Amino acid sequence: LVDALTDRELTRISCGSAFREHFGAPYTVVHRRDLHGALLEACRKREEITLHTSKELASFGETAGRVLARFADGSEYEGAAMIGADGLRSRVREIIIGDGTPRPIGHVSYRGVVPLDQVKDRSHFDDMVIWIGPNLHFVQYRLRGGTVMNNVATVASERFERGERRDYGGPDELDEVFSHTTPHVREMLGYVGKDKNWVLHDREPRSGWTRGNVTLLGDAAHPTVQYLAQGACMAIEDAVVLSGKLKEAGGEINAALLAYEKERYLRTARVTITSRIFGDIIHCRGGARDLRNHLLAQRTPETFWEVDWLYRGIKA
Amino acid sequence: LVDALTDRELTRISCGSAFREHFGAPYTVVHRRDLHGALLEACRKREEITLHTSKELASFGETAGRVLARFADGSEYEGAAMIGADGLRSRVREIIIGDGTPRPIGHVSYRGVVPLDQVKDRSHFDDMVIWIGPNLHFVQYRLRGGTVMNNVATVASERFERGERRDYGGPDELDEVFSHTTPHVREMLGYVGKDKNWVLHDREPRSGWTRGNVTLLGDAAHPTVQYLAQGACMAIEDAVVLSGKLKEAGGEINAALLAYEKERYLRTARVTITSRIFGDIIHCRGGARDLRNHLLAQRTPETFWEVDWLYRGIKA
Repeated sequence: LVDALTDRELTRISCGSAFREHFGAPYTVVHRRDLHGALLEACRKREEITLHTSKELASFGETAGRVLARFADGSEYEGAAMIGADGLRSRVREIIIGDGTPRPIGHVSYRGVVPLDQVKDRSHFDDMVIWIGPNLHFVQYRLRGGTVMNNVATVASERFERGERRDYGGPDELDEVFSHTTPHVREMLGYVGKDKNWVLHDREPRSGWTRGNVTLLGDAAHPTVQYLAQGACMAIEDAVVLSGKLKEAGGEINAALLAYEKERYLRTARVTITSRIFGDIIHCRGGARDLRNHLLAQRTPETFWEVDWLYRGIKA
Repeated sequence: LVDALTDRELTRISCGSAFREHFGAPYTVVHRRDLHGALLEACRKREEITLHTSKELASFGETAGRVLARFADGSEYEGAAMIGADGLRSRVREIIIGDGTPRPIGHVSYRGVVPLDQVKDRSHFDDMVIWIGPNLHFVQYRLRGGTVMNNVATVASERFERGERRDYGGPDELDEVFSHTTPHVREMLGYVGKDKNWVLHDREPRSGWTRGNVTLLGDAAHPTVQYLAQGACMAIEDAVVLSGKLKEAGGEINAALLAYEKERYLRTARVTITSRIFGDIIHCRGGARDLRNHLLAQRTPETFWEVDWLYRGIKA
């Protein structure tokens, strides 16, 4: 964690032997394409799995413990259960909960993956670094076997804070907030594409993801902003817990889905809420920034308590 | 800490022998009148102190290390230094910093001190209790040698949250949010006066309280909302540190005032910021409320780390 205005290192979490000993696993980052590829490959190896893509769910019904899903193209599929893992704007959630659209939090991200030889300043080559400043941060780390550098720049929009709900956090506002950062951070800003951005959303945590033999998983159940980098992790944990509950419960599918939801509700709620708080902490200004930097200076790199509840994972 | 919707005790801090041993002092609450009375009595015993009341500062100037303060009634006082301990809407701060009016946080409090024999439910007689619920809380504890019960009801206004900046948090909104609480909490609401309320404010923490031989103290320097109950405590700590720095520095008054500000800035910023966070925690709703109650249930009454930084006080 580096102050983007002063280039001072604020704190670090050591991911060396103390980390591996404490958590029993290394810290790892994976490119989305590599993760999806591994999952796809695993699916293709299983005969009981059939993949259909580009399907839009229209509605579903349940009779005598069988779920019938109807799709926009007229096709129908029947099964013992349905797991809506259909992301932030989940149609299954819309039908089960109907709590409207996700909420924007006023932050906008810009990304860029560049080949390693295009990166000029390599002072933090092997680290996962976050440069933080008032209303901004920049994340950089290597991916795909270390061959490329991933860059993410985020602006916490003051226009949004003032009540503007359209066209906030554009490239102009990004450049404006980053204009106060060090030359190194401004240089890195050149690595992200300005023509496309991600407007960040989450949802107020709530239970009630399960209806009969239908439930939700991942972002559909508990979308979170990315400040703890836990979106995919929580979806994978969901899958582990869900399969365990289904095995335990035998044929009692609804009971298994309800037990799964109960076990996942507060852990994922904590991720959603803590992610927003971490976002506020890295973007803060004035006295809050002075206090944050002062408190972070008291940490050691082997202080793990802040992430202990998270990185210790779940009982598999 | 009791859930105002279910009457379930969420957690408690034991103020018994473990507390006294840990902090080296008991937990104490004092009526404002008793504290002011004790300070006034101490002032009257010191010949070097002259009290003038109902004075409105107009301006001040400094020449050759002497401060001249001019008042609205035409009177003037000269001295080696001036300490602006003139509260939330400090005139001295206005002159030194000029950061405008304090910021409302959208919460409104109602108070009532009633004789003990008028209190019906005495189930929490000797405790300091906070009933908490969505957008509301109610505080109750005894004062003045235990002869009276102090009652404070607070509403975190949804009207304010929606953007209304006038007439929010009135008795109608207070009654509305408390309508969801238990009969006991609604009964207690009868102990607070509805004809007067306190609209809560604080300021974004910032340094720069000192100019020449003039500085700020207490709410004038670092106003906070009341959720850690630290307004008067911080002012008293300020006074202890300030007098220590003045003794140390000999005649170097400006150096003493700057050293005092430096020592007090981040500690009081932490109180201001943490008070707002604690207010958010006690007033939260939905999934955040479920998570809070779950996490609080894991505390023991002898878990002091949350208040350790605060209650350990300062080196006198």
